[in-house]
Amino acid sequence: MGKPIAVDAMGGDDAPTAVVLGALDAMSEGLEVVLVGRPDEIAAAGGASFDIIEATEVIDMSEEPGRAVRTKKDSSISRAVNAVRDGQASAVVSAGNTGAMAATALLRLRRLPGVSRPALAAALPLPGTTPRVLLDSGAMADCNAAWLHQFARMGSVYARTRFGVERPSIGLLSIGEEPEKGSALVKQTHKLLEADTEINFFGNVEGRDLLDGPVDVIVTDGFTGNVVLKSLEGTASFFVRLILDRLAGGGPAGSEALRMLAPLADELSPDSVGGAMLLGVRGVCIIAHGSSSPRAITSAIRVAHRMVEADLVGELSAVSHPAPQGPSGP
Amino acid sequence: MGKPIAVDAMGGDDAPTAVVLGALDAMSEGLEVVLVGRPDEIAAAGGASFDIIEATEVIDMSEEPGRAVRTKKDSSISRAVNAVRDGQASAVVSAGNTGAMAATALLRLRRLPGVSRPALAAALPLPGTTPRVLLDSGAMADCNAAWLHQFARMGSVYARTRFGVERPSIGLLSIGEEPEKGSALVKQTHKLLEADTEINFFGNVEGRDLLDGPVDVIVTDGFTGNVVLKSLEGTASFFVRLILDRLAGGGPAGSEALRMLAPLADELSPDSVGGAMLLGVRGVCIIAHGSSSPRAITSAIRVAHRMVEADLVGELSAVSHPAPQGPSGP
Repeated sequence: MGKPIAVDAMGGDDAPTAVVLGALDAMSEGLEVVLVGRPDEIAAAGGASFDIIEATEVIDMSEEPGRAVRTKKDSSISRAVNAVRDGQASAVVSAGNTGAMAATALLRLRRLPGVSRPALAAALPLPGTTPRVLLDSGAMADCNAAWLHQFARMGSVYARTRFGVERPSIGLLSIGEEPEKGSALVKQTHKLLEADTEINFFGNVEGRDLLDGPVDVIVTDGFTGNVVLKSLEGTASFFVRLILDRLAGGGPAGSEALRMLAPLADELSPDSVGGAMLLGVRGVCIIAHGSSSPRAITSAIRVAHRMVEADLVGELSAVSHPAPQGPSGP
Repeated sequence: MGKPIAVDAMGGDDAPTAVVLGALDAMSEGLEVVLVGRPDEIAAAGGASFDIIEATEVIDMSEEPGRAVRTKKDSSISRAVNAVRDGQASAVVSAGNTGAMAATALLRLRRLPGVSRPALAAALPLPGTTPRVLLDSGAMADCNAAWLHQFARMGSVYARTRFGVERPSIGLLSIGEEPEKGSALVKQTHKLLEADTEINFFGNVEGRDLLDGPVDVIVTDGFTGNVVLKSLEGTASFFVRLILDRLAGGGPAGSEALRMLAPLADELSPDSVGGAMLLGVRGVCIIAHGSSSPRAITSAIRVAHRMVEADLVGELSAVSHPAPQGPSGP
């Protein structure tokens, strides 16, 4: 591939340590990485052997994205995205502030021709089968139907390019399967998707279909997508904790059962799916979970590499993006 | 209490059998019940001993609510709600079509003074502690900030009246804890709730706080509320199935572990919390899950009885409902 992947060393709850450890594993697999951030902190975390792009500032996880992007010109997020824009890096990975990362990518990499808004595509890990794509999982809180329509086309390309699903089936997240159920936004989007012969539209799906449903791609606005993604993570970790609690007090049989269930945690872990992909900008851009472990970072770098090789951005450019009709606000 | 509770015998996936069985248990506890529906089907399901209000029609679970309510004048839902309106019954319970039930209640019972829109308040069962209230969980797909503000006040009254929480803390469901994060609707609602000294506003909460968060009441629009409620149910049942699967193949230790975990299923079961309460109409009106078991029906009848005794409707009438400012559409 030639060019390295720019990895924001300062982004994430456990940065830079978790990022450096993850990048070391990626490097040992032969993937080229350039770390972006404060050289002394990177070296202290064990990353002295990496090429480094220096950035003196760090955008905190809880900072207001717009202000942070405007005022912190020398942030690791900004420098990492610039590296892709300037051709120094082939892709960017950050576990930092999602909003700041999305805003910076939008501003610096710019949108693909015809794309109104980018969308963040999360992959939901499912034991024994291909992950399901959920988008938008948090880039755009307020959306209109035309944007959701574009998200459906982009999600379809992503499921094909990333997971090899030939004609991905698309579900629209709603509160009932019938076309006439849902919010005004969903009802309007349903009509657009139904009329689109370029995609394989299944129809509406419900909250219970996120993990256990009939489609490859689930389309929703970034507010709903982010809320359901976090409620799914929250429910899963709540259950795991309850079960561990009960079994831990259960003597030898409890310990034996814990050993039986341990592989599940791994199969369901978001660590294995490599973070969310920002679709619709001119570059491969992965936004990993703030709580990313070293393993999550490694797999994000791996996915970034694969998506550069598979020319995801070219594939996304090759589809037509339906133009918004009428008023374009959300 | 004098007046019986009107129970829609025809509503729910396993009606009338599950409803009749649940009503029999309620009756054996001394609760007065009148079943509403087709007398022959009720008798065939074992409900010959009940007082019956006859209704010849049934609204299917998947019927378009508006049309169903307009065309099926003699539905069990319609007759059951009318029984409350006409003073024959003290409350109504249905596991039937949620939209049809909410529309009928709104039309026939009418709104409490000052209430713009009713909200469906679900109780999320939590092991070892008071259930958390989530509203709106599906009555109003498109909401405006003034309605969400009213939902916060109504949810507060409900958590106090139903669960004895003295000054319930209220969370606004969003995609970040900071006030400036969220959709336009959420940001606007945040300001209204923050300025309201009548309620104990905590601030924004996220999807992960549904089961494991800091508040007693979570406020959201009916679209988001319904999607997260179903995604929570879906995630829970997906996990339970995976775990049963692994442990069932695990010999004696697996069986022993299943015995240890069995009580959890019960503690987390929505069967125990009695269905969702439609707040803001002039009557106690419970909409139970379509998949309600007999036990879920019994507990819904029990909750209806308790809420009549506690004068929930009077309590809701006693608070002032903030008037919408400016344009009132969603």
